[in-house]
Amino acid sequence: MKIVLDAMGGDHGPKVTVQGAVDAVNEYGVHMILTGDEEILKKELNNRTYPKDKIEIIHCTEVIENEDKPVAAIKKKKDSSMVVAFKLVKEGKADAMISAGNTGALLAGGLLLLGRIKGIDRPALAPVIPTEKGVSVLIDGGANADCKPRNFLEFGLMGSIYAKKLLNIQRPRVCLVNIGIEEGKGNVSTKEAYEVCKDAPFNFCGNVEARDIPAGYTDVVVCDGFTGNVILKLMEGVAGTFLKILKEELTKNPIRKFGALLMKSGFKGFKKRFDYREYGGAPFLGVKGLLIKAHGSSNELAIKNGIRQAKLLIEKEVVKEITSEINTLGADRLD
Amino acid sequence: MKIVLDAMGGDHGPKVTVQGAVDAVNEYGVHMILTGDEEILKKELNNRTYPKDKIEIIHCTEVIENEDKPVAAIKKKKDSSMVVAFKLVKEGKADAMISAGNTGALLAGGLLLLGRIKGIDRPALAPVIPTEKGVSVLIDGGANADCKPRNFLEFGLMGSIYAKKLLNIQRPRVCLVNIGIEEGKGNVSTKEAYEVCKDAPFNFCGNVEARDIPAGYTDVVVCDGFTGNVILKLMEGVAGTFLKILKEELTKNPIRKFGALLMKSGFKGFKKRFDYREYGGAPFLGVKGLLIKAHGSSNELAIKNGIRQAKLLIEKEVVKEITSEINTLGADRLD
Repeated sequence: MKIVLDAMGGDHGPKVTVQGAVDAVNEYGVHMILTGDEEILKKELNNRTYPKDKIEIIHCTEVIENEDKPVAAIKKKKDSSMVVAFKLVKEGKADAMISAGNTGALLAGGLLLLGRIKGIDRPALAPVIPTEKGVSVLIDGGANADCKPRNFLEFGLMGSIYAKKLLNIQRPRVCLVNIGIEEGKGNVSTKEAYEVCKDAPFNFCGNVEARDIPAGYTDVVVCDGFTGNVILKLMEGVAGTFLKILKEELTKNPIRKFGALLMKSGFKGFKKRFDYREYGGAPFLGVKGLLIKAHGSSNELAIKNGIRQAKLLIEKEVVKEITSEINTLGADRLD
Repeated sequence: MKIVLDAMGGDHGPKVTVQGAVDAVNEYGVHMILTGDEEILKKELNNRTYPKDKIEIIHCTEVIENEDKPVAAIKKKKDSSMVVAFKLVKEGKADAMISAGNTGALLAGGLLLLGRIKGIDRPALAPVIPTEKGVSVLIDGGANADCKPRNFLEFGLMGSIYAKKLLNIQRPRVCLVNIGIEEGKGNVSTKEAYEVCKDAPFNFCGNVEARDIPAGYTDVVVCDGFTGNVILKLMEGVAGTFLKILKEELTKNPIRKFGALLMKSGFKGFKKRFDYREYGGAPFLGVKGLLIKAHGSSNELAIKNGIRQAKLLIEKEVVKEITSEINTLGADRLD
């Protein structure tokens, strides 16, 4: 099993990606390929302990920056760490790819260089979100701002397969994000989506209101990429604000401060449960190959966890299952 | 100044509405009219201390239930506590109305019985949401699941006027909820909305990502009612889940439990800042009259705060200002 990492991607660059790769090699025994500037990567690897045959470097002369226009960057920067990683997956030289780089470019690369699985109209990002009970899979996390009814159906199928593998559940509950639980509620888009989902071959359990998502009401949260992005970012924002306000309130006087000291490890446990870095990245499901988008601000832990996640999804053959299961949806949605 | 309260509305009924009205009369000196079953309301009032001339009851024989179909209920239940309250506002016998009852019926009543302000296509709910810095006004909170570009523009204007009065800010910042801050980002709907808002007479400050809403990045958060409903309910859900998980983590062993005890008042302060009951209700802006929707599960504190809010909005003449300011938007949006 070989996993390629775009070692130049992400806000913190090679310092963090290389450490994440080294940790993953040591912990999970995977074989890593790092794409990027050889000199920089070698320097980063120099001080680190790991089985030397488990990490190889493929030198690239270019980097796709966050400011680059996605499609143009993918087409023009042919020797970038991201495009070269795509090629390795495409040619079967790597079983999965991870990047914390330019999200738009990564999605464009997935579509242009790997291509869509036959029968999938729109591939989608599927991050996990923390809940009271563990995690849920959210799909689409932001790849498609506007969606047609068939997209929701395909998101539901892909999300269900992913959740089954990731969470080890036989028939994950799949719900549509809506503003009421009854059938017939919602905007034009979700009403149509409900219609196509209700006879789906996966375990469609109707609508879920946003209020019930953090409680873990459903294993798979289906929505368009606009709504998904709002949900993800709002949860992140609320988490940050909560901790800030809590800290303010809990350190207002010496007694409270002392109390807070006694509970320090408790706060750590709490923070950890709401830390996206613990959960790796978001697979871009529906393309021909395993592609994982790590958060732009990933640290070494997030990269390592992204690699662990890639390993799991390779072993569980997620892409293969989507490719075969898509046929169960019937062809009538293709109009 | 007279404020009418639909005393039969809400999950907890007259017990809570009457107490809220009594507290408001005692604290703010307002004159209240309660609509509902006279016998029940008199019984509730019996044990309470307040200036007797400040609360009057108007007897109604019907109640609109949560299960009732909104438009049908408004049309048929002419002697319901909600419809009678609407009539009092319409006839100028009350300056504002509050109800914690059936939301759909309340919105339908606003449109059918009070009517829209000339120039407003779609009235909208404008709840406040807690932020690090205080509160922001969100509009639309759920009245219009699908919106046209002109709706966003009108929401921005109404939200700006409301925030100016409520938060005492001269030129509130007004932002559009979107999945990126740059112009040109978003789905079809938000791209169009940006176009019409950028030359608006209010202080339009571009897009806001959901992540930055809880930090208080903007005073007015503009979005369609679907997105607004998702934001409100998700914040509510995340708040609940946070406190639950925090409690779990913080009581895992005796030392932490002792720490938690020392910080009890700190947690109370924290909870209070995220408690919607502290903030009253959501005005339904754009109708000819002041109509406030209180949360269905309102307790007496929420009702009292809703009355305080009604008083403020009457004094500050919000409806009058919307009626005159709507003309500044220009007529080209009316196509």
